[in-house]
Amino acid sequence: MPFLARLAPRCRAIATTPPAHPCLSNSVTCFNSSSALDIPPRVIFSGIQPTGVPHLGNYLGALRHWAKLQDEASPDEKLLYSIVDLHAITVKQDPAQLRQWRKEMLASLLAVGLDPKRSIIFCQSQVPQHAELMWILSCNASMGYLSRMTQWKSKLSLPQTASPFDSPKLSSPALKLGLFSYPVLQAADILLYRTTHVPVGEDQSQHLEFSREIASSFNHLFPPPPSPNPSVPILVPPETILSPAKRIMSLTQPTKKMSKSDEDPRSRILITDSQEEIYKKIKSALTDSIDGISYDPDTRPGVSNLIDIMYHMDEGVASSAEELAKDFKGLSMRALKEKVAETIEVHIRPVGERYEANLRGATGDLADIAEIGRVGAERRAEATMREVREAVGLSWG
Amino acid sequence: MPFLARLAPRCRAIATTPPAHPCLSNSVTCFNSSSALDIPPRVIFSGIQPTGVPHLGNYLGALRHWAKLQDEASPDEKLLYSIVDLHAITVKQDPAQLRQWRKEMLASLLAVGLDPKRSIIFCQSQVPQHAELMWILSCNASMGYLSRMTQWKSKLSLPQTASPFDSPKLSSPALKLGLFSYPVLQAADILLYRTTHVPVGEDQSQHLEFSREIASSFNHLFPPPPSPNPSVPILVPPETILSPAKRIMSLTQPTKKMSKSDEDPRSRILITDSQEEIYKKIKSALTDSIDGISYDPDTRPGVSNLIDIMYHMDEGVASSAEELAKDFKGLSMRALKEKVAETIEVHIRPVGERYEANLRGATGDLADIAEIGRVGAERRAEATMREVREAVGLSWG
Repeated sequence: MPFLARLAPRCRAIATTPPAHPCLSNSVTCFNSSSALDIPPRVIFSGIQPTGVPHLGNYLGALRHWAKLQDEASPDEKLLYSIVDLHAITVKQDPAQLRQWRKEMLASLLAVGLDPKRSIIFCQSQVPQHAELMWILSCNASMGYLSRMTQWKSKLSLPQTASPFDSPKLSSPALKLGLFSYPVLQAADILLYRTTHVPVGEDQSQHLEFSREIASSFNHLFPPPPSPNPSVPILVPPETILSPAKRIMSLTQPTKKMSKSDEDPRSRILITDSQEEIYKKIKSALTDSIDGISYDPDTRPGVSNLIDIMYHMDEGVASSAEELAKDFKGLSMRALKEKVAETIEVHIRPVGERYEANLRGATGDLADIAEIGRVGAERRAEATMREVREAVGLSWG
Repeated sequence: MPFLARLAPRCRAIATTPPAHPCLSNSVTCFNSSSALDIPPRVIFSGIQPTGVPHLGNYLGALRHWAKLQDEASPDEKLLYSIVDLHAITVKQDPAQLRQWRKEMLASLLAVGLDPKRSIIFCQSQVPQHAELMWILSCNASMGYLSRMTQWKSKLSLPQTASPFDSPKLSSPALKLGLFSYPVLQAADILLYRTTHVPVGEDQSQHLEFSREIASSFNHLFPPPPSPNPSVPILVPPETILSPAKRIMSLTQPTKKMSKSDEDPRSRILITDSQEEIYKKIKSALTDSIDGISYDPDTRPGVSNLIDIMYHMDEGVASSAEELAKDFKGLSMRALKEKVAETIEVHIRPVGERYEANLRGATGDLADIAEIGRVGAERRAEATMREVREAVGLSWG
């Protein structure tokens, strides 16, 4: 799915090119403090597609990380988390299901600990400035560059060497403009909020690079008006943020990542799974018949995935997944699975319970919560767009 | 330039495919009356790019026709005329000049007789629903179909057989996503207002056809909710409207149409031209050395263009340009040119004077007038978008 946290289970350290914004010149400093060094405070943005109840991969790779970023943020830092429903429609959607999935995703974001009083939690489609900035950026986005992006190809199961029109099959009605051009909408999503940091999956690093390039190119074409601080451009090239959790794999095919689109529901654990479902799925997880427990993702992907899940679930229990594996080396596979299931249950059940309560309205009407987010997001988006319109000449001046 | 009236000098009768909307099944009835036959009233929409002071081709082919449609409309008919500045930026623009051109175009629309009390006159970029609907439509617009559209090719001076990626030259940074995808924005412009009729140039008939197809396809994918009148779809496939004026040609190269982008300013007459400029330009207009005056665009393009200008300028003076030419057959070329210049001056100078006065604020602050238009356009656009969002699943339901 074409957006950030849809693929964020892969989140991990990503080397990024040096950013143009002064805030971004030293990411380590930025990460810890801002005001002391007179660096603008961080603005953190990420998005997740509304595609039903999140699974363990979404939770560990993205959602829990988002909540942690929120809880550790200094008061002057801004956090924005978006349900990117305009990206969801780049593939065919059933309208009633999409409507339901938006609600479920909002209930999930609240369940993992995102707090509307601290983070701006909103639906992308409720802030029209996303599409507006997308159009303006698209007037400077090269078709050639976009055709080399990989994601529209993987969505259509095409080789990465494919070009949009290199065969009659490709120029068939299957390839829609929205799917082809969504990296530009994604860039708009990020740039609209002068985002300095984006927690993002490895799969998306190409698109973050695109966002940086499109921002730099815009700033070059439309330099900011003279100001006391002339180094602040209109659009801020964003930095990729480090995520501690790594990629969580399918329980049934541990060489593929855990995915909502896998036909086998036993391949993933949902945040709503009951104790019984968690134990059953972990019990049936594909491992191997090698004696003892050890960590080696290449030769023992199934076992290593279970250890990874436990390691990331129970943060601080060990210094690495390898270390954790050593604690278990004498265990039987069955005993390891018991421990994994127990760990998951302890962490996930409360999230699932809050999710169910949120859907029943425990935290208030979901549409009202989304409206609070919309107001906050739109205020910030409009502030950027006023400068963008002025710079491009789309204003009365 | 990629929008309707930018090319509207070619406006004339265009055969269109039968439309899906019940209002459109008999355009002749629709043109004259609506309420008597219980047919929804017409909604007329057209757009013009802000590209400086309009010339005679713009005036005769589009602007004067727009004013006439307004003056002859029944009270229940809606008219919307847009300065399509989001289309203007599909090619490189100087921001300060674009800002000035927006003002000049608004002053021109008022000068030709459009009345903000009767027509909604607005700037496209001030109504964010245009870009929003564009994105939603783009998720169902096929890349293959768009690649066969002609206009991005002519903007890049490419053969009409070109495909976006068929050579390294084409996949170069020259082809931007905005230019490639603007027919979808154009469709959104029209469909946003449930437009039933679009006064449009021949060059744009391909795009109108595209708007109709995209509307039908949307209505098929997202049928309207059950209602007392189930035949009214969410998006209305628009009808091309007949324009009496034909294409006005360049004064210096009468086989090419009059254009703002022609390097030779003597090739066109602007609505702001002084008496002296009008006479000078007509005097230097390229004709031929054949004796006497006759009308034959193929063999005598220069003379025929002058007769066309006079015929369309002075409506009702003759039943056709051929008839008018007969009245002048004994005249010298010089005497004909005198008559043409005089006719233009009589009609154009008052427009030019009103234009100058409007720029000086005679009709009020232009930004305030645009704001009135924005409010009216946005109200109508939002009513459509509420239904579109609901249909697609982008709502809280």
